[in-house]
Amino acid sequence: MKVTVLSGGVGGARFLSGLVPLADVTVVGNVGDDVDVLGLHVSPDLDSILYTLAGLADEERGWGRAGETWNALGTVSELGGEDWFRLGDLDLGLHLVRTEALRSGETLSSVTTRFARALGLDATLLPATDDRLRTWIATAAGEFAFQEWFVARSHKDDVDGLRYEGAEAARPAPGVLEALAEAELIVFAPSNPYVSIHPILAVEPIRAAVEARTVPAIAVSPLIGGRAVKGPADRMLRRLAGGTAPLQVTECYKGLIDALVLDEADSPSGLDVRPIVTRTLMVDDDARRRLAETVLDAAGAPA
Amino acid sequence: MKVTVLSGGVGGARFLSGLVPLADVTVVGNVGDDVDVLGLHVSPDLDSILYTLAGLADEERGWGRAGETWNALGTVSELGGEDWFRLGDLDLGLHLVRTEALRSGETLSSVTTRFARALGLDATLLPATDDRLRTWIATAAGEFAFQEWFVARSHKDDVDGLRYEGAEAARPAPGVLEALAEAELIVFAPSNPYVSIHPILAVEPIRAAVEARTVPAIAVSPLIGGRAVKGPADRMLRRLAGGTAPLQVTECYKGLIDALVLDEADSPSGLDVRPIVTRTLMVDDDARRRLAETVLDAAGAPA
Repeated sequence: MKVTVLSGGVGGARFLSGLVPLADVTVVGNVGDDVDVLGLHVSPDLDSILYTLAGLADEERGWGRAGETWNALGTVSELGGEDWFRLGDLDLGLHLVRTEALRSGETLSSVTTRFARALGLDATLLPATDDRLRTWIATAAGEFAFQEWFVARSHKDDVDGLRYEGAEAARPAPGVLEALAEAELIVFAPSNPYVSIHPILAVEPIRAAVEARTVPAIAVSPLIGGRAVKGPADRMLRRLAGGTAPLQVTECYKGLIDALVLDEADSPSGLDVRPIVTRTLMVDDDARRRLAETVLDAAGAPA
Repeated sequence: MKVTVLSGGVGGARFLSGLVPLADVTVVGNVGDDVDVLGLHVSPDLDSILYTLAGLADEERGWGRAGETWNALGTVSELGGEDWFRLGDLDLGLHLVRTEALRSGETLSSVTTRFARALGLDATLLPATDDRLRTWIATAAGEFAFQEWFVARSHKDDVDGLRYEGAEAARPAPGVLEALAEAELIVFAPSNPYVSIHPILAVEPIRAAVEARTVPAIAVSPLIGGRAVKGPADRMLRRLAGGTAPLQVTECYKGLIDALVLDEADSPSGLDVRPIVTRTLMVDDDARRRLAETVLDAAGAPA
């Protein structure tokens, strides 16, 4: 079954690791939280997916690579360089190769495809766009680039609004619209709607393709019992959508989904899409596989 | 005593580590072997000096930092990136900070000064020039950029000639001419004349300042018993100067030195500068100190 998944980083990556063995998956990844650090182009969400699907992720820490070391960053700190963004040595190698490739004119999608192949991924991984698209966060303390808000300021400022810089002019990366057109199922991964999925949908032709879909689109809620497993999704939903129930998640995806996978701990009341209730916490490989099976089942496919 | 030393990498750095505790040292470092790797500006000679004087060098391997790891480069190889130049993780941190600084408009000499301060150096370290200057090696197989010949081709090709690209237009870095004017002694470190010292002297105002000196200039021969301790200096001297005796070393420095420090294993015959015979192999800290004392003594300073 051909499945196209819109995904952010860690949560989405874990979901994908359960889905990829069961389906023919194309991932459309968020690039709104890409950042330039030490002259390097870093794509945290694409990399989380790459590392997780390649079995290289540090599952305990929840980001970056297993067996990571931090020697380069130690030198950077020693020399007074830019050390607020945690770049490990193993990780740095990827950023160096990607940055060189981009500088020499290769597109992000082309580099990403090469990396996915080199790391043996069984899925197709595409950035939403090869063009520059950056998420900005409006707060009482001012507007911040996503990583400045998220990492440097530890996402402590309440979010009053978001802006996806460059989205209007951004074109879908090659293969994205084709993957949506050919999909038998479209899935929104259990990612933060505002900072992971919306930046993808901010690329207008992608949103239009999802709106015009002829196949089911299913979102997996990132909340369990109204709380985010990790990160600021619950605080953002409470403030920007007025609550952290499944209803508020679906309101983020108005007209774009037909069903919502939600946890047993949450209430489907008020939903105008089909609720699919299950256990969504991805505690281990089995749980990831079962969640993926539930999504595929819901789409009418044999699991 | 104010001493200004023209120096290449490893051999020069070792000599400097003996000299710096005994004198007020300014180092004018070679940048002809600088190289752009993975989008990073690498200055191997300046870095060898930095690491050695900061006590961070890997003395056994003979280059790079002690306790180095190679994780970033492992990823680079895995992803099909440019991995011919051995960049360790600790080392990479420095290249990242320097490259960012250069890209934002800081000069190489300014960055180098910051690094020397951050690493606690007791000497002033300056690149010969802030302008681009690159050593090219002419061989029967074609002309190669220095590091391509030295590292990628393991300096196996015989050298028919050298070219210092950019030297004509290069201006001495701020502080270099002042250091030469204020020096009470000028020293040519035991470095390869062709690829370490000549690229410095190829900056015309530097050569002119040494020629016009009113204080002694002493070179330390990099050869022992007509052989290089490390590297291709002996092969180059044999081919380009017709021999590997002290005479051939002084011919590389015609009009620029008043004395040559040579090893007991070599003959001073035919020299038209004052020979200073001693043991020059820098086997340990004591040997480095003694060699430095010999040089200072020869200049008429109390050791």
